[in-house]
Parts: sequence; structure tokens; C-alpha cells
Amino acid sequence: MHLKPEMRILGIDDSPLISDRILVVGVVMRGEDWLDGVISAFIEKDGNDSTEKLSLLINSTKHYGQIRVVMLNGVTFGGFNVVDIKALHEAIGIPVISVMRRFPDMDSIRAALDNLSEPDRRFKAILNAGEITEVRTKWQGGPVYIQCKGIEKSDAAKISAGCAVHSRIPEPLRVAHLIATGIVLGESSKRA
Amino acid sequence: MHLKPEMRILGIDDSPLISDRILVVGVVMRGEDWLDGVISAFIEKDGNDSTEKLSLLINSTKHYGQIRVVMLNGVTFGGFNVVDIKALHEAIGIPVISVMRRFPDMDSIRAALDNLSEPDRRFKAILNAGEITEVRTKWQGGPVYIQCKGIEKSDAAKISAGCAVHSRIPEPLRVAHLIATGIVLGESSKRA
Repeated sequence: MHLKPEMRILGIDDSPLISDRILVVGVVMRGEDWLDGVISAFIEKDGNDSTEKLSLLINSTKHYGQIRVVMLNGVTFGGFNVVDIKALHEAIGIPVISVMRRFPDMDSIRAALDNLSEPDRRFKAILNAGEITEVRTKWQGGPVYIQCKGIEKSDAAKISAGCAVHSRIPEPLRVAHLIATGIVLGESSKRA
Repeated sequence: MHLKPEMRILGIDDSPLISDRILVVGVVMRGEDWLDGVISAFIEKDGNDSTEKLSLLINSTKHYGQIRVVMLNGVTFGGFNVVDIKALHEAIGIPVISVMRRFPDMDSIRAALDNLSEPDRRFKAILNAGEITEVRTKWQGGPVYIQCKGIEKSDAAKISAGCAVHSRIPEPLRVAHLIATGIVLGESSKRA
């Protein structure tokens, strides 16, 4: 994959769980830190609609033709509304990278799902994200972990590290997080 | 005034008028294009609470101590909910710059106010913004016009032109606009 310096990346994060309708924010960034557009949608807290809602959001945006990579802050949105990144990639035809701050504890996740409807389906969607790759950025304080679909792991790692310009979190996800929390809480919080 | 390259600027814009409760978005930017935080509040469409709500929002944010300049997209928010930038500056103790794409037509504004409560008070708040200065940026397609309080016109012009990095609209206002429309409409529009 040819990685252009001003490649458009769509970063998506959810907002804090303060109601049953969870705001999801997507930011289209061009290169390192040029914000090109903002999109948004709502999903259900602990619901099952995140994959479908994100597919619709991405397929219908005017930015669709420019977006080269979609990045997600993990695969669980709005609580345990799991994004199946395999299905998402198939629905949108764009590479998808999920980025995590910590290596996920699958046993804890499996246990937590038992409190919700359709735990097996949710867990399968989580497992569909596939192999986890550690990515070192130029920042101190630990790596990030990624899963990807529709793109080579080495390219996904290079893109994730390359757009970690102000912290180890790739810039489109850092910005999506600031917006999602700033809008819902009135003030943004730092952690993505 | 000493203008540091990584000076924090808070840019504030409102969102499209699709309900009676209008989302107002503030973005704290550090230097040209580093997004440092997002804050938000609601004001009434055509109400009288914008000066007070913005004062509260700015005085209570954790970013307060870092903000060197507040920029507004004009002085009419949420329809004709007029921000009195003289009163705002006095309430927050930070320089305020209002930036307009076009030179305002005061006769049309005065006429439009007659359909609302307290037209004289609103018009006085608009006049309080004071003298209008034309600012040329590096971009083709016309200047912007500014009004300011608590800062020399020449410094306000320099700051406004200096942070017009991706269009003639200063970056904190361009980004606040993308967020405000993207959240409320689901998709951002380009014009600030």
C-alpha cells in the first residue's frame, strides 16, 4: 500500500455513557493534523447496531471517496455494542484498523458479556477482529495494540505510528475523543 | 502583546438552527493546528443568554488559565442571540476577537431585529462590538473583518491572519464550525 503524507484517515470514537443513546464521532483528517470534516451518528448503549450504523455513516458521507483508512478506538462502542471490523470492512470496502491502549483481557470481556443479550454473538464479533499487533510509537509510556482488516499488518502499524503526532494515540482518534467527550460532557477529557 | 507561536486560542461557533436549543462549540487550539480541547454549551435560539452562557463556559473550563484569546464567529449566535463582546471581555478578562466573512449590513440587521423582543438592547450589543477592521490573509478570495475588545487592533489582525492556515477563516473558528455542524447535522459543512 502506498502511504501518502496527506492521506485521509477517518477516526471514530464514542462518547461517555451518560444516556441510552450514545453519540459516535468521526473525524476526517488529512495528513497529520488537518481536520477536514466531522461526521456523527447515534448508537444504542450495549446495543447491537454499531457495525450497521458505522457502515451507513461511512458509506453515506461526502468524504467517502477520499477516506483511505478507518480507525476505531477499540471494537466495543457504547458499552458493549461490538463493531465487527470484518463485517465493517466488507460493508465499506475500506481498510479498518482498531487501536487499543492496552492489550485486551479476553477472559474479563467474555465474563462481562454474560450480563448482556447474545453474549456469544458479541464475543464472536470481538474475536473476528483477529490477531493483535503491538505498535511502538515515538512516545514514551507504552505501545498501542492494533487489529486490522483489509490492510497488511505492517502497513497498519506504520500508519498508526505515523499519525501519533501529539501522543501515542493516532491523531484522528485523539481528536475524535476530544470532540465526543467535549460535546457530551461540555468539557473534553484527555484519555482516548 | 507578545504573540507566541503556540499560544492557546479558543474559537467558538454555533450550530445550525434546527431546534430551539442551539449547540455552541468551543475549540482550544495550540498554535496553528494542534487541537487541545473541546468545550460546549447550549443557548436559546434568538434568546438573550449567549453572553452569559459563553462567560460561564469560558470561566469554568479547565483550559481557562491557558487561553490567551477568544475568537467568535461574528457576534450573533443561535439566530440573533447577540454576544456583547465588551461585556464578555469584562466577564472573562481575556481579549475577544469577532471574525466575520463579510462586512455587516447594519441596516438589514437593525430591520431584522424588529421581529424579536428587545430589538434596541440587541442592537446596542451589536454596536458595542465597535470599529470593524479589514484583515488580509494569505488566501485569495477576499479579506475577513474583525472587531475586538481587550486587545490592540493591530495585534488582533495579526493573530487572525496568522492562524488562517487552511482557509481565510482562522483555524480555531474553522474547526469549531466543522464540529458544530458535524455533530448537529451528522455531516460537517465547509462554510464558517
